[in-house]
Amino acid sequence: MADDGYFIGVDLGGTSILAAAVRQGNVLVEEKKKTRPEQGPDAVVERVEAVIRKVLDEAEDEGPAEAVCIGAPGAVDRTSGVVRRAPNLGWENFPLGEHLEKRLGLPVIVDNDVNVGVVGEHVHGAGRGALHVAAIFVGTGVGGGLVVNGLPVDGFRGAAGEFGHIVVKPQGRLCPCGREGCVEAYSSKTAMEAMVREKIDEGRQSIVLDVMRDKDKDGLTSSVIEKALEEKDEVMGEVVRTAQYYLGLLTADVVNAFDPEVIVFGGGVVERLAESFVNPIALTAREHFLRREGAERIRIVPAALGDHAGTIGAAVVAQRSPHRFAG
Amino acid sequence: MADDGYFIGVDLGGTSILAAAVRQGNVLVEEKKKTRPEQGPDAVVERVEAVIRKVLDEAEDEGPAEAVCIGAPGAVDRTSGVVRRAPNLGWENFPLGEHLEKRLGLPVIVDNDVNVGVVGEHVHGAGRGALHVAAIFVGTGVGGGLVVNGLPVDGFRGAAGEFGHIVVKPQGRLCPCGREGCVEAYSSKTAMEAMVREKIDEGRQSIVLDVMRDKDKDGLTSSVIEKALEEKDEVMGEVVRTAQYYLGLLTADVVNAFDPEVIVFGGGVVERLAESFVNPIALTAREHFLRREGAERIRIVPAALGDHAGTIGAAVVAQRSPHRFAG
Repeated sequence: MADDGYFIGVDLGGTSILAAAVRQGNVLVEEKKKTRPEQGPDAVVERVEAVIRKVLDEAEDEGPAEAVCIGAPGAVDRTSGVVRRAPNLGWENFPLGEHLEKRLGLPVIVDNDVNVGVVGEHVHGAGRGALHVAAIFVGTGVGGGLVVNGLPVDGFRGAAGEFGHIVVKPQGRLCPCGREGCVEAYSSKTAMEAMVREKIDEGRQSIVLDVMRDKDKDGLTSSVIEKALEEKDEVMGEVVRTAQYYLGLLTADVVNAFDPEVIVFGGGVVERLAESFVNPIALTAREHFLRREGAERIRIVPAALGDHAGTIGAAVVAQRSPHRFAG
Repeated sequence: MADDGYFIGVDLGGTSILAAAVRQGNVLVEEKKKTRPEQGPDAVVERVEAVIRKVLDEAEDEGPAEAVCIGAPGAVDRTSGVVRRAPNLGWENFPLGEHLEKRLGLPVIVDNDVNVGVVGEHVHGAGRGALHVAAIFVGTGVGGGLVVNGLPVDGFRGAAGEFGHIVVKPQGRLCPCGREGCVEAYSSKTAMEAMVREKIDEGRQSIVLDVMRDKDKDGLTSSVIEKALEEKDEVMGEVVRTAQYYLGLLTADVVNAFDPEVIVFGGGVVERLAESFVNPIALTAREHFLRREGAERIRIVPAALGDHAGTIGAAVVAQRSPHRFAG
């Protein structure tokens, strides 16, 4: 950039707010705060402002901050900066962009958290240089995003990339979305926990619940999964293999439908288990590719930016936005 | 166009060659010939030349022909005009573009037949005006194509749009592609015929085989399906409902993944049965949409151009190609 400024990328989650000063994909400064959504949207905006101000202070030698982009966990209207619906925050039609612009005196772009993560991995992460990228995020749910011909795909209603709700088994397990047999019903952490508990209820031996207790976790976290696999817990192994199998089918569906060059796997589980989680998915996927020619050049890999995909991607979106010149 | 010329679109199929002079989506003149692929590629090229020359003659009052685009049934290399592999023609690495350019003295663009059909429906057919369009073609197989952000999606290897091979039932029916549970294994004409025969073998009553005999068809054609449904043949009804159910799941998968504005159904079966085939698919699909907001504005409709999608789409591709200025 001619003026050598930087961009602020913010990852607004249900648990924490992460903000970073970013220049060309490099994180200059980073700050974090709890979100505490139960205190209401105004309190959250105040905390977002505080964490951004901290970043601005610490990065003051880095030239001017050009613009802010914030990735919010829900449906957003980019044009107006309104968060339409964010269940994890309990927000409906909240004008986040307007509030933040007034407080900060900087242009603020509001986008979806998954979208900015995909942009981050595409531009500076595992998808760098590829024209077509699919991202699949495995966490509490299974989310995703898509870059086609170099551009993130929003779709007609801004609803593209819901890979977690591709049906991999008709009349299969009930999904939190209310439908049956979605990949999310087999491959999210929530689904994996449910499957572990069912097997234990059926009388199978497993250390998973003990590990949860030892680690003082009230759910199946990535670290619990890792520990149980290290201890060669059979039930955990079976459940992870089931999750991987359906993620493999999903990956093949995505490849057969739009032929990306790179499929990036991200989210907590992948960050923790990396290749050991992704490689079996890739094996199943490759068995289900329709077209074999050139298939070996398709990469199925863990995300490269980890926790930073959201802030780095948001900074890219801020840099791309013409909106910032009107700010 | 300033020079008021027209474009030649050619739809090269395993059975027939259809060529048309097209200006802005309007077919000025159209000609048809049998392909007779068993006579070898050189004989086919000769026949393609002949049908194009006929169109050129008949359209001579319409101004100059600017360029030709030919949609071939297989994998093509657009840059070189080589048909990489067309099983229906028995071709491998055949330089179709070069041969035709030499014979015609006009620029010739070679593309895939499904791609040009999708472009035709997008630009001049049922998808007109939409930024994001998915097309699903039901015939001997199940094919498809995708327009995202206004552009046809080729993918990394030129293999995008293979919607027929989305797995809708793991470990399900064997598909001609060698894998199990693809939508093509339930919803193609070939699959429908196999399912009808299985039910008859199990002792079910059906008039389908009689209708085939009466109509002198050695396979389940669209007209046989139509007749059997008119006669309220129970087996045919069940099989068509199965085909529609899985096409409905596929449609929902496509919507959840790409969020298109229009899903266009084409191919022989759809051309014959139109809304009566597509509407039940749409009903199943709509039950499986993840996001309901704005879902009523998503259109699931039969193709509008029928047999002409290929030639009209090829003419659009010819018009778009910079290649024609070098011809």
